[in-house]
Amino acid sequence: MTDKQNHISRDNPVKTLEVCLSPALLANYSQENKVVVVIDIFRASSAICTAFDYGVRKIFPVETVKEAREYKKKGYITAAERRGEVLKDFDFGNSPYAFMNKDLKGKTIILTTSNGTRTLKRASEASQVVVGCFLNFSVLQHYLLELNRSVILLCAGWRNRVNLEDSLFAGAMAHKLKSHFRVYCDAARMVETVYQARKNNFREFLKKSSHAHRLKHLNIEKDVNYCLQWDRTQVVPVMKKDFLIAMEKEPPVSL
Amino acid sequence: MTDKQNHISRDNPVKTLEVCLSPALLANYSQENKVVVVIDIFRASSAICTAFDYGVRKIFPVETVKEAREYKKKGYITAAERRGEVLKDFDFGNSPYAFMNKDLKGKTIILTTSNGTRTLKRASEASQVVVGCFLNFSVLQHYLLELNRSVILLCAGWRNRVNLEDSLFAGAMAHKLKSHFRVYCDAARMVETVYQARKNNFREFLKKSSHAHRLKHLNIEKDVNYCLQWDRTQVVPVMKKDFLIAMEKEPPVSL
Repeated sequence: MTDKQNHISRDNPVKTLEVCLSPALLANYSQENKVVVVIDIFRASSAICTAFDYGVRKIFPVETVKEAREYKKKGYITAAERRGEVLKDFDFGNSPYAFMNKDLKGKTIILTTSNGTRTLKRASEASQVVVGCFLNFSVLQHYLLELNRSVILLCAGWRNRVNLEDSLFAGAMAHKLKSHFRVYCDAARMVETVYQARKNNFREFLKKSSHAHRLKHLNIEKDVNYCLQWDRTQVVPVMKKDFLIAMEKEPPVSL
Repeated sequence: MTDKQNHISRDNPVKTLEVCLSPALLANYSQENKVVVVIDIFRASSAICTAFDYGVRKIFPVETVKEAREYKKKGYITAAERRGEVLKDFDFGNSPYAFMNKDLKGKTIILTTSNGTRTLKRASEASQVVVGCFLNFSVLQHYLLELNRSVILLCAGWRNRVNLEDSLFAGAMAHKLKSHFRVYCDAARMVETVYQARKNNFREFLKKSSHAHRLKHLNIEKDVNYCLQWDRTQVVPVMKKDFLIAMEKEPPVSL
């Protein structure tokens, strides 16, 4: 930790760190003046970070397939996923591999997914909304410390139910950030405990998750393995009005 | 584990075990043909078990203070708690110590609390609703195995947010029951992991919970210590229509 970061932390000693385990619980949190980190490890967050890493300029998250279809008609590149599958007539789903495409450089993409994009829309009262996953873990950690605001780590879950992979990510981030925040949030304590207990075998632990079971028939093991890699990119996707752009940062020197 | 219980488990191999971390998430679970265990460690579940242990005959959980006040006017013994405090004009709040009273033997009590009684009402689609806490842990475990149905462990939480004490109880029960159920529920895996990680110092862990902070000024440390005792009673409170009665059971011989 640099002196600068320590200094920042002391400047705002009452900033809090909270974890919200499902979008259905967000109404019980005050978002005011806080930064909300939207987490959907399998696979929206990971796909978004990958797309920006490959040079995509803007991503418009939309909630419904109907909206996505209208953008598609207007000629936009459009990605739509439901139940883990690419919807018919759309360019992509939410596999990160689909966005590893140099032709997308500088382009705008419309994206709708089962859980992730809906969750992005729910955090509309926050002062800032960013996207987090293992792929951008350290740069996001650095970014959150620099922002010097209260943080809510918001797990997209699965159909409003809690899931392991988003919770474990929140636990890992809570573990790294907790000394800089007040943590009066039991969900944060829980996920940090789970992370600490499973950090040495977290891939094995996650392979037993309900989502891994659900996605088994889709043959996405390659995607799952990709999404569980730490620090593959330096982008922090940030919502500006109704679209995401990437804040690209230098790799943190000392964390 | 007795042969009888093993036999029962094999009879219904598809029964599932799920954990719901907040009443606000219950809409995402099917309650049909399941038994729902309502958990509000600090303090409604613990108070209810204690009341039955002291011979109370029936407890009517009601959601609003207004309803409770109407019963009070009709002459019922009425307990009402909000924000951890006994409400003015009522006989008790939800301190278990208030129910350790031989004069309550055979009586009917009306009860409304911030979280626990509301949660009992939400589980209205289950085939059975029971009340769980550390005080009746082993007898409840035995009861759930005998019932041979799918189980949802439903944490009352705090104002729809997740809390440590209810989650830790759910984790302990999931740990004991898991070999007899299919567990495709990530919340169950999480709380079981937290329980396993903290079981040797769970009192210390819970003392750091948000609820312990919240209740500090009420000077209820005595209540907290009481509620964290295992197996003080053999009662399993069960909902029958709109009231609770106690199923009293022999102590389990071998678990």
